[in-house]
Amino acid sequence: MGNFWAIAGAAFLFLPAVAGDGTTAAALRDKALTDPTAWKVLESLSYEVGPRPVGSPAYEQARDWAVAKFKELGFTDIKVEPFAKPSWKRGAESAEIIGPHAQNLAIIGLGGSKPTPKAGIEAEIAVLPSLDVLMAAAPGAYSGKIVMVNQPTVRAEDGAGYGGAVRARYAASEAARRGAVAYLVRSISTGTGRSPHTGYMRYVDDAPKIPCAALGVPDADLLAYLASAGPVRIRLKLASTEQPKTTAWTISGEIKGSKHPDEIVVIGGHIDSWDSGLGAIDDAAGIAITTAAARLVAGLHPARTIRVVMWGSEETTGSSVAYLETHKDEVPRIVAVGESDVGADRIVSLMLPSDVAAKSVLAPLADLLAPLKIMISREPVRDAGADVEDLVKAGVPAFAFKQDASRYFDYHHSADDTPAIVDTNQLNQNVAAWASLLYLLADSDVNLRAKPSSASPN
Amino acid sequence: MGNFWAIAGAAFLFLPAVAGDGTTAAALRDKALTDPTAWKVLESLSYEVGPRPVGSPAYEQARDWAVAKFKELGFTDIKVEPFAKPSWKRGAESAEIIGPHAQNLAIIGLGGSKPTPKAGIEAEIAVLPSLDVLMAAAPGAYSGKIVMVNQPTVRAEDGAGYGGAVRARYAASEAARRGAVAYLVRSISTGTGRSPHTGYMRYVDDAPKIPCAALGVPDADLLAYLASAGPVRIRLKLASTEQPKTTAWTISGEIKGSKHPDEIVVIGGHIDSWDSGLGAIDDAAGIAITTAAARLVAGLHPARTIRVVMWGSEETTGSSVAYLETHKDEVPRIVAVGESDVGADRIVSLMLPSDVAAKSVLAPLADLLAPLKIMISREPVRDAGADVEDLVKAGVPAFAFKQDASRYFDYHHSADDTPAIVDTNQLNQNVAAWASLLYLLADSDVNLRAKPSSASPN
Repeated sequence: MGNFWAIAGAAFLFLPAVAGDGTTAAALRDKALTDPTAWKVLESLSYEVGPRPVGSPAYEQARDWAVAKFKELGFTDIKVEPFAKPSWKRGAESAEIIGPHAQNLAIIGLGGSKPTPKAGIEAEIAVLPSLDVLMAAAPGAYSGKIVMVNQPTVRAEDGAGYGGAVRARYAASEAARRGAVAYLVRSISTGTGRSPHTGYMRYVDDAPKIPCAALGVPDADLLAYLASAGPVRIRLKLASTEQPKTTAWTISGEIKGSKHPDEIVVIGGHIDSWDSGLGAIDDAAGIAITTAAARLVAGLHPARTIRVVMWGSEETTGSSVAYLETHKDEVPRIVAVGESDVGADRIVSLMLPSDVAAKSVLAPLADLLAPLKIMISREPVRDAGADVEDLVKAGVPAFAFKQDASRYFDYHHSADDTPAIVDTNQLNQNVAAWASLLYLLADSDVNLRAKPSSASPN
Repeated sequence: MGNFWAIAGAAFLFLPAVAGDGTTAAALRDKALTDPTAWKVLESLSYEVGPRPVGSPAYEQARDWAVAKFKELGFTDIKVEPFAKPSWKRGAESAEIIGPHAQNLAIIGLGGSKPTPKAGIEAEIAVLPSLDVLMAAAPGAYSGKIVMVNQPTVRAEDGAGYGGAVRARYAASEAARRGAVAYLVRSISTGTGRSPHTGYMRYVDDAPKIPCAALGVPDADLLAYLASAGPVRIRLKLASTEQPKTTAWTISGEIKGSKHPDEIVVIGGHIDSWDSGLGAIDDAAGIAITTAAARLVAGLHPARTIRVVMWGSEETTGSSVAYLETHKDEVPRIVAVGESDVGADRIVSLMLPSDVAAKSVLAPLADLLAPLKIMISREPVRDAGADVEDLVKAGVPAFAFKQDASRYFDYHHSADDTPAIVDTNQLNQNVAAWASLLYLLADSDVNLRAKPSSASPN
C-alpha cells in the first residue's frame, strides 16, 4: 500500500498497446486515477449526512442527498423506490464490572437486540473462547449467566477471517437455549481499538430473546483476564426501540445508452450505514467509486445504459429482495451487475462469471488492469454483494472486484469508520478499475450470458 | 517491528565476547528477552485497576496494588509517600452539530477544564488551521464563538510531532483573550481513530476561564469540512468537579545493595493515568519494564541499591517536585535516575549525561545493546522524564532510553490505550536494555558525576 502512484507512474511509462476501444479505455483509466469525484462524494455523504441507519432522520436526508448528488453529477432517470422495512433504534447503553475490579466496559448493542429491563441485568459472566464451545454446551449449561464468546477475528487479505468469526454475532439464541440471560460477543474486529463493532443479529423463534451486545476488543480481553482468576459480575443496560414498518428507499440514476438504452449495466453501493461511525468505508466508498466511474464513462457516450444504484437497506437486509421485486421485468436486459461494498482499499483481482467466455470477450481487460496491479482471477465470482444477490439468483451475470480487506475489519461497523481512514490513492485505483470494466461492458455488445461456444469472437 | 525475535535469535548466535561483568550482563539481557514479568505486571495494573486518575477510587486501588505487587516480587523497604495535589473529575460530556447537518461529535474534556453551564454553550465555530493563526489574531477576533484549532500532529519516530502540536492543547486562555466562549482542539494524535485524546491544560489568571475539550481526529475533519462551506453552530456540554486538596501517593520498593546500600539507582514509571483508556502504555508499561528489569538484576545481588519508583502524579504534574522535596537529602547518593514513560515499543538509542566519561565507564554497554539494535546516542540526554526533572535539576545524573514513538501518539491519552496495542517482543526488548544498564550501574562503582579527566579507567 502507499506506493500506488509509483505504480500509476509506471503505467504511464509502460502502457501496453491495446487494440480498438482498449486505447480509449486506457485513457479513461488514467484519467480516473486523478479524478477527484470519488473522494468528494465520499466526503459529502460522510460529513453532510453522517450515520444513516434505516428509520433515522439522517436516513431521509441521505435519500435527498442521493437525488441531489445524481442531479449535480449529470445523471438522468433518477428514481426513489420505497419499500417497507422494520427498523431498530439504539437507546442509552452501558456495561460495568461490579465488585473489586469495578470498571466501565465499552459496548454497543447489536442491531435488532431486545432491550434489558431499565435497571439492567446483573449476572456473572461466562467467558467462552469460541462459538464451538457454546455450541457444544448442554441446555442450561449457562443458566442465569451472561455468556460472552471471545473468539478473535483473523486478519486476512481476502477478509476470510470475518466469515468465520461473524457467526458468533448471531449466536444470542444459542446462548439463550443454554440458559443465558444476556449475550456478549467480542467485536468482530481485526483491530485493537476500544470502539466496539456493531452489526445485525437475529433471534430464532423457539428460544428466549435475550439482549445482546458487542464488547470492545480490549474489553473482551479484560473480561477474559479477570474471569480466569475468579467469578466476575457485570451489569448490562441496553435500550432500544423497534418500528415494525418503516419506509426504506433505493435511489438510482442513469447514464442513458446512446445506441442500446434498454440494455443496462447495474452497479452501485448502499446508502444506509450503522449508527456509530460516519459510514465512510461502509459504504460511502462504494457509492463514491461507482458514481465516479459511471460519470467518467458518461463522457464517452456508451452504447448501453449505466445505472448507478444506492441500495437502501444492506446492513439489516431488505434491499436485495426489494430491488429484484421492483425490477424483475428488466432481468433479461441487465447486462451485468456489480456492487462495491468492501471499503476503499485497493482492488487485488477481478472475478467474472464462470460459464461465459468472459476472458475472451473482455480481452483488453487483463492489459488494462495490469498496470493497476489487478489480476483477472481464475476463480469465478461467488459473492457479488449482499444487495445484488437476488438479481444474481434471478440470472443476472455478476462480476466482483475483490479488494484488499486486510484493514477493513479494523474499522467496519465501528465509530472509527470515517473519511480519516481512507487512502485516496487506493480509492482512485478502484475508480480506474471500475471505469475500465464499465466502459468495456457498456460500449460493446458483450454478452456475459453466452456459453463459451457461442461467445462473440471479438 | 515484529522481527524482534529474529534479532534476538541473531544475538544468541553472534553474541559478542565482552569482558568481565559484560558476560554476566549479556546472560541477564538474554534472560530478560523471554521473562514474562513485564507483561504480567502491565496486564495486572491495566486490567485489575484500570483507569486511575488522581482523586479517583481506582487511584487508591492502584496504591494498594503497587504495595502488593512490590511485596509479591520480592522488593523491600516499600514506601508510600503522600503529597497534596488538587484533582479534577470528569462528568457527562457531549457535543453536537446544530442545524441541517446535525450530528453528534466525539469529544473529551481536557483535564482541568471548567464546566459549561448545565444547558451547554451553543455558538458558531471558528475553525483555525493552526495555533499560529490563533496567536496572530486580534483581541476580540472570535467574540462569542467557539474556537477550534485544527492543527494535525506529525508522526515521527522520535515523537517530535507531539511537542509541536501539544501547545495547542494549552491554548484555551489564548482563545478566551480573543473573545472565544469555549475552546476545542483537534486531538493531539497521529492516529485516525475517533476516540478523542485528553490531556492536561492550564488557564492564565488574566483571561476568562472558558471550557475546553479535544475533538476526535475525524470530528475535527468533519467540522473543518462543514465550516469551509458556511457557518456551523454546535452545542457543547462539559461537566466536571475539582477538589483543591486530594492526596496523591508515590510508591517505591527496593532491591537493597549488597555492598553499598546507601548508593541508589532510581528508576520507574508513573502510576496515575488518564481516565478513558486503561493506562497500559501510559504508563503501566514504564512500571512493568523497570520493575521487571530490577527484579532480574536482584538475582545477581548487585552492590548498590536499586529503587523502583511508581510516581504518583505525572499526568497533571506534581510528583517530580514532591519526590525531590521528600528525597533531597539523598541527592548526593543517587547514582543515576531514569524513567520509562513512552510506552512499550522498542528502544532505539540510549542517551547518557554529557559531562561524564559515561561511554568509557560503561564500556560494555555498546556491545551489550547492539544485538538489541540499540545505539548509544551521540546526543546527551535532554529529557529524562517528567517525574525526574526536579531530581535532574538538583544534580542527579540522568539517562534516557529513547523509544520508537511512531505509534505512541495514536493511542496516548485515549480510550485506545489498552494492553491490546502492546507488542510483547518490543516490551521485552525494553526490559533487556534496562536490565543490562541497571546491572552495570548497580554492580559497579561507576560515577556519572565524574568529569572525563577524573573518570575511572575501567
